[in-house]
Amino acid sequence: MAPEKRIDQAEVLLEALPYIRRFAGKTVVIKYGGHAMTDDTLKQAFARDIVLLKYVGIHPVVVHGGGPQIDRMLSDLNISSTFVRGMRVTDPATMKVVEMVLAGQINGEIVSLINLAGGSAVGFSGKDGNLIVARRAGTDNGDLGQVGEVIGVNPELVRALQAQDFIPVIAPVAASTDGESLNINADIAAGEIAEALRAEKLLLLTDVQGIKGADGELIRTLSTSEARQLIADGVVSAGMIPKVDCCLDALGGGVKKVHIIDGRVRHAVLLELFTDQGVGTEVRRDGAPSDDGVVRRSTGDGARGSA
Amino acid sequence: MAPEKRIDQAEVLLEALPYIRRFAGKTVVIKYGGHAMTDDTLKQAFARDIVLLKYVGIHPVVVHGGGPQIDRMLSDLNISSTFVRGMRVTDPATMKVVEMVLAGQINGEIVSLINLAGGSAVGFSGKDGNLIVARRAGTDNGDLGQVGEVIGVNPELVRALQAQDFIPVIAPVAASTDGESLNINADIAAGEIAEALRAEKLLLLTDVQGIKGADGELIRTLSTSEARQLIADGVVSAGMIPKVDCCLDALGGGVKKVHIIDGRVRHAVLLELFTDQGVGTEVRRDGAPSDDGVVRRSTGDGARGSA
Amino acid sequence: MAPEKRIDQAEVLLEALPYIRRFAGKTVVIKYGGHAMTDDTLKQAFARDIVLLKYVGIHPVVVHGGGPQIDRMLSDLNISSTFVRGMRVTDPATMKVVEMVLAGQINGEIVSLINLAGGSAVGFSGKDGNLIVARRAGTDNGDLGQVGEVIGVNPELVRALQAQDFIPVIAPVAASTDGESLNINADIAAGEIAEALRAEKLLLLTDVQGIKGADGELIRTLSTSEARQLIADGVVSAGMIPKVDCCLDALGGGVKKVHIIDGRVRHAVLLELFTDQGVGTEVRRDGAPSDDGVVRRSTGDGARGSA
Amino acid sequence: MAPEKRIDQAEVLLEALPYIRRFAGKTVVIKYGGHAMTDDTLKQAFARDIVLLKYVGIHPVVVHGGGPQIDRMLSDLNISSTFVRGMRVTDPATMKVVEMVLAGQINGEIVSLINLAGGSAVGFSGKDGNLIVARRAGTDNGDLGQVGEVIGVNPELVRALQAQDFIPVIAPVAASTDGESLNINADIAAGEIAEALRAEKLLLLTDVQGIKGADGELIRTLSTSEARQLIADGVVSAGMIPKVDCCLDALGGGVKKVHIIDGRVRHAVLLELFTDQGVGTEVRRDGAPSDDGVVRRSTGDGARGSA
Amino acid sequence: MAPEKRIDQAEVLLEALPYIRRFAGKTVVIKYGGHAMTDDTLKQAFARDIVLLKYVGIHPVVVHGGGPQIDRMLSDLNISSTFVRGMRVTDPATMKVVEMVLAGQINGEIVSLINLAGGSAVGFSGKDGNLIVARRAGTDNGDLGQVGEVIGVNPELVRALQAQDFIPVIAPVAASTDGESLNINADIAAGEIAEALRAEKLLLLTDVQGIKGADGELIRTLSTSEARQLIADGVVSAGMIPKVDCCLDALGGGVKKVHIIDGRVRHAVLLELFTDQGVGTEVRRDGAPSDDGVVRRSTGDGARGSA
Amino acid sequence: MAPEKRIDQAEVLLEALPYIRRFAGKTVVIKYGGHAMTDDTLKQAFARDIVLLKYVGIHPVVVHGGGPQIDRMLSDLNISSTFVRGMRVTDPATMKVVEMVLAGQINGEIVSLINLAGGSAVGFSGKDGNLIVARRAGTDNGDLGQVGEVIGVNPELVRALQAQDFIPVIAPVAASTDGESLNINADIAAGEIAEALRAEKLLLLTDVQGIKGADGELIRTLSTSEARQLIADGVVSAGMIPKVDCCLDALGGGVKKVHIIDGRVRHAVLLELFTDQGVGTEVRRDGAPSDDGVVRRSTGDGARGSA
Repeated sequence: MAPEKRIDQAEVLLEALPYIRRFAGKTVVIKYGGHAMTDDTLKQAFARDIVLLKYVGIHPVVVHGGGPQIDRMLSDLNISSTFVRGMRVTDPATMKVVEMVLAGQINGEIVSLINLAGGSAVGFSGKDGNLIVARRAGTDNGDLGQVGEVIGVNPELVRALQAQDFIPVIAPVAASTDGESLNINADIAAGEIAEALRAEKLLLLTDVQGIKGADGELIRTLSTSEARQLIADGVVSAGMIPKVDCCLDALGGGVKKVHIIDGRVRHAVLLELFTDQGVGTEVRRDGAPSDDGVVRRSTGDGARGSA
Repeated sequence: MAPEKRIDQAEVLLEALPYIRRFAGKTVVIKYGGHAMTDDTLKQAFARDIVLLKYVGIHPVVVHGGGPQIDRMLSDLNISSTFVRGMRVTDPATMKVVEMVLAGQINGEIVSLINLAGGSAVGFSGKDGNLIVARRAGTDNGDLGQVGEVIGVNPELVRALQAQDFIPVIAPVAASTDGESLNINADIAAGEIAEALRAEKLLLLTDVQGIKGADGELIRTLSTSEARQLIADGVVSAGMIPKVDCCLDALGGGVKKVHIIDGRVRHAVLLELFTDQGVGTEVRRDGAPSDDGVVRRSTGDGARGSA
Repeated sequence: MAPEKRIDQAEVLLEALPYIRRFAGKTVVIKYGGHAMTDDTLKQAFARDIVLLKYVGIHPVVVHGGGPQIDRMLSDLNISSTFVRGMRVTDPATMKVVEMVLAGQINGEIVSLINLAGGSAVGFSGKDGNLIVARRAGTDNGDLGQVGEVIGVNPELVRALQAQDFIPVIAPVAASTDGESLNINADIAAGEIAEALRAEKLLLLTDVQGIKGADGELIRTLSTSEARQLIADGVVSAGMIPKVDCCLDALGGGVKKVHIIDGRVRHAVLLELFTDQGVGTEVRRDGAPSDDGVVRRSTGDGARGSA
Repeated sequence: MAPEKRIDQAEVLLEALPYIRRFAGKTVVIKYGGHAMTDDTLKQAFARDIVLLKYVGIHPVVVHGGGPQIDRMLSDLNISSTFVRGMRVTDPATMKVVEMVLAGQINGEIVSLINLAGGSAVGFSGKDGNLIVARRAGTDNGDLGQVGEVIGVNPELVRALQAQDFIPVIAPVAASTDGESLNINADIAAGEIAEALRAEKLLLLTDVQGIKGADGELIRTLSTSEARQLIADGVVSAGMIPKVDCCLDALGGGVKKVHIIDGRVRHAVLLELFTDQGVGTEVRRDGAPSDDGVVRRSTGDGARGSA
Repeated sequence: MAPEKRIDQAEVLLEALPYIRRFAGKTVVIKYGGHAMTDDTLKQAFARDIVLLKYVGIHPVVVHGGGPQIDRMLSDLNISSTFVRGMRVTDPATMKVVEMVLAGQINGEIVSLINLAGGSAVGFSGKDGNLIVARRAGTDNGDLGQVGEVIGVNPELVRALQAQDFIPVIAPVAASTDGESLNINADIAAGEIAEALRAEKLLLLTDVQGIKGADGELIRTLSTSEARQLIADGVVSAGMIPKVDCCLDALGGGVKKVHIIDGRVRHAVLLELFTDQGVGTEVRRDGAPSDDGVVRRSTGDGARGSA
Repeated sequence: MAPEKRIDQAEVLLEALPYIRRFAGKTVVIKYGGHAMTDDTLKQAFARDIVLLKYVGIHPVVVHGGGPQIDRMLSDLNISSTFVRGMRVTDPATMKVVEMVLAGQINGEIVSLINLAGGSAVGFSGKDGNLIVARRAGTDNGDLGQVGEVIGVNPELVRALQAQDFIPVIAPVAASTDGESLNINADIAAGEIAEALRAEKLLLLTDVQGIKGADGELIRTLSTSEARQLIADGVVSAGMIPKVDCCLDALGGGVKKVHIIDGRVRHAVLLELFTDQGVGTEVRRDGAPSDDGVVRRSTGDGARGSA
């Protein structure tokens, strides 16, 4: 191998060094969904990333969605759904399908992918170990049925699994205190779990590049007040607003940093965590340095900052 | 309350005492299925029993089946199945349904029931934490498709959950080393898990009273050689033979005692474990005393023995 | 066995369930005396009860008295005693006999009974491990000699024994800081030890049914202010007043609940702890629910409440 | 202070150094009896010695006798005894007195003395924690009544107390498996306990200088075969033979070294353990060096060896 | 041996008892220097003392100087030095020699001496484990070069070694945050380390008897305000003032007691710690009793106090 | 950044993944010497590599040499040396210099470099904690003076430091059992320490590319018997033979794999451990797979194997 190639290899490892050190022993919650969950190459790259995190001492926690697969099964069973403000109205028949698909199909697939990549994943839903306690969401805009809002998270199960180096994979289904199954928005579930675990980071895998500014350019780092301003200014797209709200809630609840990243990039998780440049937008508390202060990032080419 | 009533209460507690002592800290694996899993009253009684075991320091592990529910879903989805020697031939479409129903529907229901009764259950399948490693079963009698035979059990996940006082609830689905989902017979899965955990007891809930002798009377206790003789003599019914085989395998693999009990009796688990008389047939190794030698059971009225 | 009998058995076990759960890992101090300590059947039933508590994870601590046996030995040795306000005046010769009988005779008998019932008891007095530090009681009403009042309790010895699952059996003899042996009232010793251990419950075994109301009926539950009122109203008998005072002190000192129970009922300890109805009077802090809120007890037939 | 006095002080401390190091964390069982238990000055010196051992990290265990005090109490109660081969014939009335005096009087006194000297002693008998399990001794020479021979020692209680830095003080009374109280020879009890604890040393406090040779001179160190020869040669006095037998049994059972020391010398325990010269006779296994090989002792003046 | 000699031995051990108890598990920091570090007999006696402390459960930490040896090596290498206010001006060439001699010569010698005496010493400098963080000392009186003042102490390394019963031996060299080697005054280094370890005692071995009063007599015990008064009154010699300042700083920083002792007395450390009379001057906080209140020292002959 | 650059970054990280996993928690001993210890750029790169190993959970142990620096100091002090078979004859004056330079100069520099790179190093010699016990080497070829051969290694000190995440840096100086300082060959010291720690790997940094075959090409992997054959065939250069012998000894003593690597390559340690190709020659036991079987290395371009 050419000497300069070797130096490059060493440089990549050395660049990753302060991040590996910074995040060792920390919990990173990853909302997994979109293309990254349907494209076979991206799926395998995602599984390898998760296992790598574990290898270097980080505790990844995966929370997944599953809208398209649910739609398909509802269709196969000739069950039709209605939506209110983007939330599926969930009648008992629908809920049964939601749970079956999330907990019985997608969850198991992710577990198998991670296990094939060399990890030891454990899949479960928010009902297990009373992880997510929820109640029916308010009905201002019409009854959503078995759609839940989170009223509490008991992180003991996740902690017990982390202590034994299992990788938790969580389906966003909860039970009410009366035992009713409830459908939870996966972004919100991920955010609440990240808060309860006092996670170092929450990563939301999306099908976009990240948050863009008024000029259409990707913004690499953003404080909470800058994010609020962007929403107020109408710069953030309607589809992105709930995700940004979710970020702000998580930051308010104790999560150190939230990243909206481009799940269509292969190894997005790895690159976001272990390289200077990253692959999306990080949202940080006002006054907090970019990327936890590990490195001073210039605003020059290739560095994080408003590009 | 009348004094004699009080003495009765005390007597029941005192009868339970040596069993509570004997089994404290031990693992009891329970194969849950049949009527006990469909009748609402029996379901709730079962959940309360499981929680009581935990309260008094026993570690219950539930392994469940789900044939009828799978049939219904296959029918709803217009998927037809064929059976070879009582084993469902499992093509990819069928396997997907099997997994969805077992891991996504029944498993979650049992978890909810136990949680409502005051426990903290965690449901998962044999894929999680690589609990059950399997391969496609042999094809002497025709290809069974994704039907698996167990080649190994990694009990770490169950141990980790027990250590934190969670109650494991397991769906009998496994993955091959290539990541293929495989359908496992629930009795066999329960037996293999009991072996790997070096369980004190394996309880098989059935829809019959237990094993009956040539005279049609229930047999309360049976050694392995007596059991083999009964099969050789054609006394055991064809439907019961796989269960008895499963018992013998588990005993051979280190489980201390196996009980075939009548799941139609309310609180069958509780009564079998904590009362002298029990509610089914215990199978013990040759030479081992009945019921672990805790009590000397007379052969008289109401005592365990060939009735 | 008849099916209804089986259901009864299950019901008794299920009734005991919330109590077993509630008290697991908790300390219960039991003042043992009276008929329960002289009748052979009651003695054995008491020992079995204590062992059962240990089996289900409760930490019983026994504190015993011994007045009649001391009287007999004093008589055998031709040593005469005088009493001041119900307290024996204890000269050196008497003290020697008190200590010999309590620590050298009764204590050992109780230890042997518990050990025969399957427990592992350890007997000692308040001198051991400096458990009870006392001083000569005040002499307003004449010198009581070596009668002590408690000035401190060092619970380390009891804690060390509990940690190894031994059952402590304590004779109410203490040493002053100068090493003088002192005779301590057993009820008071039990109360002080219960406080120092932050016990869940203090049970005083007596030779009466419990505290009775003005109508002569047994009162099943009583708040501290109700108890004080009963004394002020002259309803509580003179002989019972010191016991009630002892209850109130213990409640004031951090014990969760105190029970005055009828030691003449076989298995009184078991029935009081594990059945809804109990066998005596519980005294609770003002505002605290009856029976620690485990169950809502109706005031109807068979339920705890003013009968 | 004169410089040479200071050097002397330093020398005593330095001489003690290798012994303190050698014995730290080790268990030393001390049979306490005779003058050392009746003379007030010797009693206090003994208690201080025991506390010093604890201070420097040694775990002392005291086993005491009490013949004279038992005789006195039997006389006060007009109970007469007979002896067979030096063992008291123990009828039920006598046994009650034996237990009362040993466990209820002497034991408590020793506990108080040690506590006054700054230790934290815990007194109990062989019945507690099933420490000594015994049966009635054989009756070749006539029935000895409730005299026991040891059939097993359960050291858990002593270990639990040592782990918390309590000093165990043990009365030589045991229970049979049927719960009968039995009187045990204190030397033998001490030896059996030392074996069960795998003690570093067993010290027998006596009222003689130690074992003397044919020339009437004190022997400072003795191997087991030398000891057997002395008995065979008729050199050992009849009264000393049982003690030497006890030493040989203990050495055979795993105790590292046994010392017969002169309890009439003030601080005998301290001097035997921490000075080169000692105050009695050590008995060691054949081939073992004198005094555990800590120091090479010359045979000259003041050194251990046949004087 | 004569009986009175034995009693003397016992008395020395008994006098040491309360000190051994008091200091067990505590850290004692010893500044080692002067004659005690050059005279062979004193060196060996010092090493034995240190090992004895460890044997009885005290954690000694040695901090050493080395001026004379540094001077010799500088001379051998023809490097000349200048001094400012008693502090060596340390240019790079000098610093290299300082470090080589302290860390590479003297430190290793002390380690070897202690190891030969039966201990297990570990030598290192203030650079190791970032133990001492320093910066260049201020330059009011001219530039001192690589002379450092302590800005922080990280005691983790010392704690880790103590936890494994190693004896730390520390050379007073530190690194700045830029990695520059700095020379630290050994008395000050010892005081700072004692503070960071919250040491029970700081012992400064000197070549004088201790602090003397206006009458020229040795003062055995001194409060901080008395010490300040002595300095104000001009009674303390100029050479002793920095040592007394160091004592006052350490006391102010949390060290319990500081002793200036006569390193020329053999076994000075042992005698100061374990005998009533001691061999120097103790400095205690205002209001604190002499010698930690272990013993009440009369002001009579041979007792601590102004002689 | 260009997408293909990102993929490259991910690939480097993914290539390192199985190695990071394989070596986590393992000990790697590194003999540090030659150019890597004199060139400033290489020194800093080395320190960063060591810190990176620690970050990813590997336990590096550094053993260093120092011949050139010793020569320079001997020259400065006008001390001349003679050599026998490549070993310096070490008289007392020389030994003093050896120890001063190794333990007092080079050791501290390495500690400072590692600390500046973000680690927490602790430097010491083989005398500390009795790490290396040695005796004077045999004198067949003339007296070598204070040159030692290792007779034992006590790894407790290294273990204690590793447990607290310190990085040990060891100077190859030992003490004899009589306390004499002895000079140890650094390669041999490293090998012996690796054996005692049951190290995963021993890395010898040299100033050559590695071991070359008869054709002058670098050999990338070599079994022990192949290595012996190369020596027998006279292919290995005389200067390399002692290093190869050292490798064979270490492999025989339990070290899993030994690597002779080119210390002149920047980040040689990192590249050897975390990339497929490596930068030197690995020597493995006969029958062991190359590189611990983590990856199957083709013999093609860029892969390990005889190039």
